[in-house]
Amino acid sequence: MKRQVYLAMKTIEEAREVFFSRFGPELHTEPESVAAEAALGRITSEPVFAGRSTPGFHSAAMDGIAVRAEETYGTTERRPKVLQAGAQAVWINTGQPLPVSSDAVIMVEKLHMLDDEHIEIRSPAYPWQNVRKVGEDIVATQLLFPRNHRIRAYDLGALISAGVYTLRVWSRPKVAIIPTGSELVSHHDDEKVSSLKHGQIIDSNSFILAGLVEENGGIPIRYPIVPDDEREIRHALEKAITSDADVIMINAGSSAGSRDFTVHVIDGMGEVLVHGVAMMPGKPTILASVEGKPVIGNPGYPVSSALSFNQFIKPLLFSLLGQGKPVEETVTVRPSRDIPSKLGLEEFLRVNIGKVGSTYVATPLPRAAGSVTTLTRAEGIIRIPSLSEGVSQDEELEAELLVSREEILNTVLIIGSHDMTIDLLADEIRKAGGAIRVSSGNVGSLGGLIALRKGICHLAGSHLLDTQTGEYNLSYVKKYLKGMQVNIFHLVRRDQGLIVRKGNPKGIQGLKDLSRGDVLFVNRQAGSGTRVLLDYKLAQLGLESSSIRGYDHEEFTHMAVAVDVLSGAADCAMGIFAAARALDLDFIPVEREQYDLIIPVEMLQLAGVMKVLETIQTSRFRERVAALGGYDPSRSGELWKKVE
Amino acid sequence: MKRQVYLAMKTIEEAREVFFSRFGPELHTEPESVAAEAALGRITSEPVFAGRSTPGFHSAAMDGIAVRAEETYGTTERRPKVLQAGAQAVWINTGQPLPVSSDAVIMVEKLHMLDDEHIEIRSPAYPWQNVRKVGEDIVATQLLFPRNHRIRAYDLGALISAGVYTLRVWSRPKVAIIPTGSELVSHHDDEKVSSLKHGQIIDSNSFILAGLVEENGGIPIRYPIVPDDEREIRHALEKAITSDADVIMINAGSSAGSRDFTVHVIDGMGEVLVHGVAMMPGKPTILASVEGKPVIGNPGYPVSSALSFNQFIKPLLFSLLGQGKPVEETVTVRPSRDIPSKLGLEEFLRVNIGKVGSTYVATPLPRAAGSVTTLTRAEGIIRIPSLSEGVSQDEELEAELLVSREEILNTVLIIGSHDMTIDLLADEIRKAGGAIRVSSGNVGSLGGLIALRKGICHLAGSHLLDTQTGEYNLSYVKKYLKGMQVNIFHLVRRDQGLIVRKGNPKGIQGLKDLSRGDVLFVNRQAGSGTRVLLDYKLAQLGLESSSIRGYDHEEFTHMAVAVDVLSGAADCAMGIFAAARALDLDFIPVEREQYDLIIPVEMLQLAGVMKVLETIQTSRFRERVAALGGYDPSRSGELWKKVE
Repeated sequence: MKRQVYLAMKTIEEAREVFFSRFGPELHTEPESVAAEAALGRITSEPVFAGRSTPGFHSAAMDGIAVRAEETYGTTERRPKVLQAGAQAVWINTGQPLPVSSDAVIMVEKLHMLDDEHIEIRSPAYPWQNVRKVGEDIVATQLLFPRNHRIRAYDLGALISAGVYTLRVWSRPKVAIIPTGSELVSHHDDEKVSSLKHGQIIDSNSFILAGLVEENGGIPIRYPIVPDDEREIRHALEKAITSDADVIMINAGSSAGSRDFTVHVIDGMGEVLVHGVAMMPGKPTILASVEGKPVIGNPGYPVSSALSFNQFIKPLLFSLLGQGKPVEETVTVRPSRDIPSKLGLEEFLRVNIGKVGSTYVATPLPRAAGSVTTLTRAEGIIRIPSLSEGVSQDEELEAELLVSREEILNTVLIIGSHDMTIDLLADEIRKAGGAIRVSSGNVGSLGGLIALRKGICHLAGSHLLDTQTGEYNLSYVKKYLKGMQVNIFHLVRRDQGLIVRKGNPKGIQGLKDLSRGDVLFVNRQAGSGTRVLLDYKLAQLGLESSSIRGYDHEEFTHMAVAVDVLSGAADCAMGIFAAARALDLDFIPVEREQYDLIIPVEMLQLAGVMKVLETIQTSRFRERVAALGGYDPSRSGELWKKVE
Repeated sequence: MKRQVYLAMKTIEEAREVFFSRFGPELHTEPESVAAEAALGRITSEPVFAGRSTPGFHSAAMDGIAVRAEETYGTTERRPKVLQAGAQAVWINTGQPLPVSSDAVIMVEKLHMLDDEHIEIRSPAYPWQNVRKVGEDIVATQLLFPRNHRIRAYDLGALISAGVYTLRVWSRPKVAIIPTGSELVSHHDDEKVSSLKHGQIIDSNSFILAGLVEENGGIPIRYPIVPDDEREIRHALEKAITSDADVIMINAGSSAGSRDFTVHVIDGMGEVLVHGVAMMPGKPTILASVEGKPVIGNPGYPVSSALSFNQFIKPLLFSLLGQGKPVEETVTVRPSRDIPSKLGLEEFLRVNIGKVGSTYVATPLPRAAGSVTTLTRAEGIIRIPSLSEGVSQDEELEAELLVSREEILNTVLIIGSHDMTIDLLADEIRKAGGAIRVSSGNVGSLGGLIALRKGICHLAGSHLLDTQTGEYNLSYVKKYLKGMQVNIFHLVRRDQGLIVRKGNPKGIQGLKDLSRGDVLFVNRQAGSGTRVLLDYKLAQLGLESSSIRGYDHEEFTHMAVAVDVLSGAADCAMGIFAAARALDLDFIPVEREQYDLIIPVEMLQLAGVMKVLETIQTSRFRERVAALGGYDPSRSGELWKKVE
């Protein structure tokens, strides 16, 4: 099998050094002229000087009368002066031009009308008082904006009043995006999309990249999908090179697999500067120069592709537009748990971030580089240096923010057992139009209690059955949150049962069938409420866990086990009715259980937590929960127990 | 004279309360459908659910071979197993679909090729290892985004891979902007612009407002200019009300002057909720409702108009788009001097901000609401509460940022005497493409030394003549910066002289003519180097300052006095040649003086200060300075004196 090797892999810093010494700050796009009114957000390519002065005439800065200051000299409280309206005193409004003979304005509040013709004043005016003089704001020829200045809304006013109706700006960098891959299908190709073949995927990377180009001031030019064919890739690259594109991206084919032609093609046409960067995700990045233009081979996984963009193409676009280096907003976080990391690669870990007490807590999302939702669901990115084997939960570190700091401050962190009503709650709160957001982490019920104990979430969702008492949550809270003042609120009662394929092809009737040799089970993780319930029920039936095929195969959410059933990775799973229904699977009820929200007393004053409790009591929320099926929301929001 | 009174003036909070209880968070624009690829920056009007699962098939998460896990069971280091390529082991690249018979991938690094046909493994595979399972990223029906979510580039990938090719978003709010004012001229009206009449001004406010609407997610619809005519204003408002505009702004005519019809017109058609807000600038703001649509009368001055927008229209646009309240980034600053403020009005003071040592220093810009450059030149806005008579320089307070925090960190603060070469320096530094910016404050030479002493700038520009020794700056530095380690670098030598009108109509020959009764002088402020030089020269000539008309009329910059000469406010001023040349005035040389940069030793290590010293030594900078005329830059950047 033909496999290529990476050129000597470089660290991010080395790769940037090599790339940006070739495409440095002196490289810009062509300047172009734009009308001032169309210049919002554009960046000046040369300094802008005022063409005219403003104000262009002396004008009143107050409502009042225009006078000649000399004629008011000698006026005092005891020796007031009377001015003749129209002759010595001309009524004037703010902004109106001063009559030629006047050089001062007396404000209306200081005037005493004797009659329509005569105005008394009691203090003198000095020359130019309450007058906006010619050029007070802008003087013709003065520097309005330096080069490389981004035009904001206020700046439009300065430009137009200074008589600058067109200006020179850097043209927006054109970025050619060439999606490659024989497996790719355009979502515009209705026919192919409707009968997607096994192994085909819808091209979405090129849209992420186009969006990133746009967000960073460039113009994306998406090319048609090119199959994994060396000649066709070469052809597309040639076309892009001879076009007016300033930057070219080929996505993907940049790694070292047998069908990865990108590096060959580039190497044949220009110079490969870097192949392979010690970052994860993003390792298979190519940085090259072809006929003087920067050419980047992006990795194929969406997260890899986006992170590689951020490290290399984003700063290139900034530089082409004279904007210096991009600066990411960061926040100091504490990880919610120890995070091991691979030595030798700088890892970019997507994390959820929430503020609990005075600490920003970062909870890692799955590492999968193919999973775009690890980016869309993340509030930030933690970088773990290549020489580190990971970070401990006691360390403080910086996270780059993907959302605003304000969004994080307004986020309620619910960690614990996964339930669909939490998603619904998030939406209901969002709908109210306020700033509060809900972020949920799925670590199982017990994981949620431990997260509360560690102070890394605001509240926990839990459905832990005490197999001694038959009561939910209370004994666990007393045990795991000993010493904490905690309130337990009902969220819902819900149906747990067996999720099986549509039509129940294996004819599974109940838990006892799990020990059948032809039934492959998929389990929830230890510590989850569902696992506790399952084990309790198995013990009641006298079934050994060792008799169940797949008992050791664990997943972390109801949806994950349901997906395993849907995809054939398992025949059967224990989970909630709503998960089965969402994927159109069959469901055999086992138990109706209690799902609660566990909230430390000190969190009850937080706006976000109050909003949660308020929302789950609305009839609208209850109706939507009931409509999911398998839920009883009649006691949602009810305070059930206080634990001290 | 007909004058109106404001309705009972309201505080900003009261006004917002009244306005937003009428136009609350439940009010949105109409939802519309957009293609996913065109959804960047748009805001969802309803939750978005996945239409398909992704991955849509089981695929390899690594390069290697696809196997059936069962067939590898029992393999150990000591009992390796040999698999038949093609049959038991299928070569597979990352992302490729798993053959139907396989359920695991063994990565290439763990394989030992015996020959082309036979592959040895030394450990077993477990089911689903290195496999991306169906729905691992996104499961059909799952919530992708809640409502009121702003779509980012990454989100485009999630939408398209989840089969969501169109989605519902709030339509961008359409904002009608009606510019009113008989004095207004459109800059597109070439004929009127080229022969602008006395008192006419170019409409620029409507472009600022349009830019602000755009920056906040709306679509501005600029109406033609409407003269100050009650009937015509009513007609324009009627048109806007019956159009599809969501919000209507009338700019201006909102104050209480005799030609201010806006409030009448609105009152006749709907309900005026607020007229007059206790803010400065921005007092003459009207908030109203006409046929259920929000109508805002904006003040006429550009700064007032923009600040009123920020307080009322910006939050309205946010709310229409389901975005909660806008949050301004702030920084804690210390004012560079005491700032008095008017009781009873909340003042919005534009300030320059720079970081000196560990302190963010805020220096107030002029208050003039008509001066748009007080906004464009500002880095932030300080709000002084209406119940305060001002803030002291020892107080810490919050400033809303108009630029990024990073820009402030990269700003070199030069305070002191005004010189045009500082503007030129700023541009040369900007041209280099780095992040460094130069911000200059003009307070005269002595003011600059005092600013250094107070620690509110990085360096000072000074040209203070010691009239005893004839030497520049040194004795002043020793006196005013006693105890500080300071280096003095040459910036330029430059010509000071008398600036007179073109053609010198008053026939002024030299300083002795200043005492002529027909010559009106305008002076620079006490403490400026130019003033020191003037007083020194007058003393040499034996001229009394009391003999000079206008000696007490002070301005703060060379350009300001030159403008006074240009506009006829004075016949003559003392200033630099470059100012005279910029305004095409005549110049009578008096002295060639020395202008230096005074830099505390601890500032010499700052990147920005190093950049300044590097730049002023470049031949490019010197050539540009020489081209201004009246300058000798031959010693620019030379270290002249060290003072300890």
